[in-house]
Amino acid sequence: MAKLMYADYYLPNHTVSVLEYLKSQDIVIPKIYKSKEEYSKAYVKRTKLEFFYEEKERDLIEIFTDMLTRLFEINKIDPTKIRYVFYTKSYRSYYSYHGDGEYHGRDMGGGSVNIPYYLTGRFGLEEACVIVNDGKCASVLQALELSAMCCDKKGGYGLILTPSFSKSNNRYRDTTLFGDGVGIMLVGDDRNSGYEIIDSLLKTDGMMSWQLYDNYIKECQGYGEKSKKPLPLLKFEDVFEHEVLNRHGLTNDTVKGVITLNIKVLIDRYSKVYPGRVYQENVPYGGHISDVDLIRNFKDFTSKAPVEKGEHMLLISCGADTTGMEYGGVLLKG
Amino acid sequence: MAKLMYADYYLPNHTVSVLEYLKSQDIVIPKIYKSKEEYSKAYVKRTKLEFFYEEKERDLIEIFTDMLTRLFEINKIDPTKIRYVFYTKSYRSYYSYHGDGEYHGRDMGGGSVNIPYYLTGRFGLEEACVIVNDGKCASVLQALELSAMCCDKKGGYGLILTPSFSKSNNRYRDTTLFGDGVGIMLVGDDRNSGYEIIDSLLKTDGMMSWQLYDNYIKECQGYGEKSKKPLPLLKFEDVFEHEVLNRHGLTNDTVKGVITLNIKVLIDRYSKVYPGRVYQENVPYGGHISDVDLIRNFKDFTSKAPVEKGEHMLLISCGADTTGMEYGGVLLKG
Repeated sequence: MAKLMYADYYLPNHTVSVLEYLKSQDIVIPKIYKSKEEYSKAYVKRTKLEFFYEEKERDLIEIFTDMLTRLFEINKIDPTKIRYVFYTKSYRSYYSYHGDGEYHGRDMGGGSVNIPYYLTGRFGLEEACVIVNDGKCASVLQALELSAMCCDKKGGYGLILTPSFSKSNNRYRDTTLFGDGVGIMLVGDDRNSGYEIIDSLLKTDGMMSWQLYDNYIKECQGYGEKSKKPLPLLKFEDVFEHEVLNRHGLTNDTVKGVITLNIKVLIDRYSKVYPGRVYQENVPYGGHISDVDLIRNFKDFTSKAPVEKGEHMLLISCGADTTGMEYGGVLLKG
Repeated sequence: MAKLMYADYYLPNHTVSVLEYLKSQDIVIPKIYKSKEEYSKAYVKRTKLEFFYEEKERDLIEIFTDMLTRLFEINKIDPTKIRYVFYTKSYRSYYSYHGDGEYHGRDMGGGSVNIPYYLTGRFGLEEACVIVNDGKCASVLQALELSAMCCDKKGGYGLILTPSFSKSNNRYRDTTLFGDGVGIMLVGDDRNSGYEIIDSLLKTDGMMSWQLYDNYIKECQGYGEKSKKPLPLLKFEDVFEHEVLNRHGLTNDTVKGVITLNIKVLIDRYSKVYPGRVYQENVPYGGHISDVDLIRNFKDFTSKAPVEKGEHMLLISCGADTTGMEYGGVLLKG
């Protein structure tokens, strides 16, 4: 059975304090606050976030090259055994070679250098198929589920590459600030170490796109043309327990560790369902680095070996933007 | 075992003749031609292409809504049994709602209406997970392979949504002109009809991105940092025969029908390997509609039932842009 064998992450050297960033930004402040300073302090208290990481020096290809060198050379992974490379961003984003001898950085769009393609060439991944699954903050979970299926069916490894960089003027949200970082994971089943990928459940809620397009924002009370009932996604933890955990003789109470995103409101929500078992040590340090959070938290959590052989861990996430939401959980066994 | 149960496609009403289009475009003509007219005639002769389809009226959401209504209502497919929706384009492309009461069309980028999300909301796909696999002209084959794995593992259906639209000034290539169109496919295993998805092989060649980024264009003769040998992709049909067909007791000679893209040079190449068995009736009519070609050709070919129960068909494709190439084959059994 396929295992999550390896996880690694990269964080930039440069950090920015939340107070410093908020000072520099033009943010609409709720009326109950007398000043921006007062709001900023309350924001730090509420989000528990102290600083975020900002990349100012290196480009994605350099970063991934270092990380894959470590994977292949130090960890002795054979690159020709990689069958699938999942790149969890649009391949059109983040890099652009303009033919003028300069490499233009992030968020340029277009361009002729495709990062996962570059890496297959550079490292001789001769048996690999690159799959660009461009999702939201649960796309790493999609890639994990698909990698596990691919490895179980075809053998070899699945490599997951997850970059997350934000434009400097687009980091602020009501609940967190976006940080920069990169994560990778390797799925396979040829070593004793690692965590078995037991099961998973992933769902999408497209209501916002539907309501926006059809101008149903006021009229539509329900979801789904026929069912008129809300999707079960708002209670995803219950659905996951019922549809996944119970199938393996588990409940929400018997999962030993829970990994999620570095967002305080999400941690609080999951802490009600899995009290005392949600990993949250990274929340103050670095910002919400999209689903790199999951990779970073998985690595940091498991480095302390808190889950014994045979015990279960859960990776759970939700991603949202103005078009809709995606939710997912992946069940792991130590 | 998962089957390709259903395929449907949409082509616009409006067509443009190749000669008419070339006349309107600023194209660099090889010096051996005396005039643009002479070149255009030679181009038509060489590509066998007479006209392409151009969408001038409808938007993608209208088109997909009609196609899915046909799938769910006329073909009595239960939308709540769809577990995976593969959308083979960036969800950021092709549609944009600007909040001004108008819907801006294709290639706008950004925007708040995500087409596959809209469709999950509109049709009540309550159990679905949307996976955006944004690839090149073999991404339908990636989606087919992944759908088959998902259905075999999780049950239910996989729905593949494939739009392809081009900007009017970006249709010309040396070997074909891009046309507009949309395709859908359904994968599942709860009906007697359909084609079993027996096996598949997909690969990526990232050499172009690697060479471009590292300026290896002249220096690098091989492929892969260590191996210095070319990828086997240039002889993909041989690799496919060796690694896939032989495993099922088949050879290139025993596959009964071959479906590929509507590009004459590709048809010619595959016709050498699978003589007399490559479907090519659509080549003159409509242009190269990215991997919608595969869906269209599959539907048109199988509507004439040329493959008997137990006989094998092959979907084979390659996609290339300036960043690299992807290759793939999916083996089907009638």
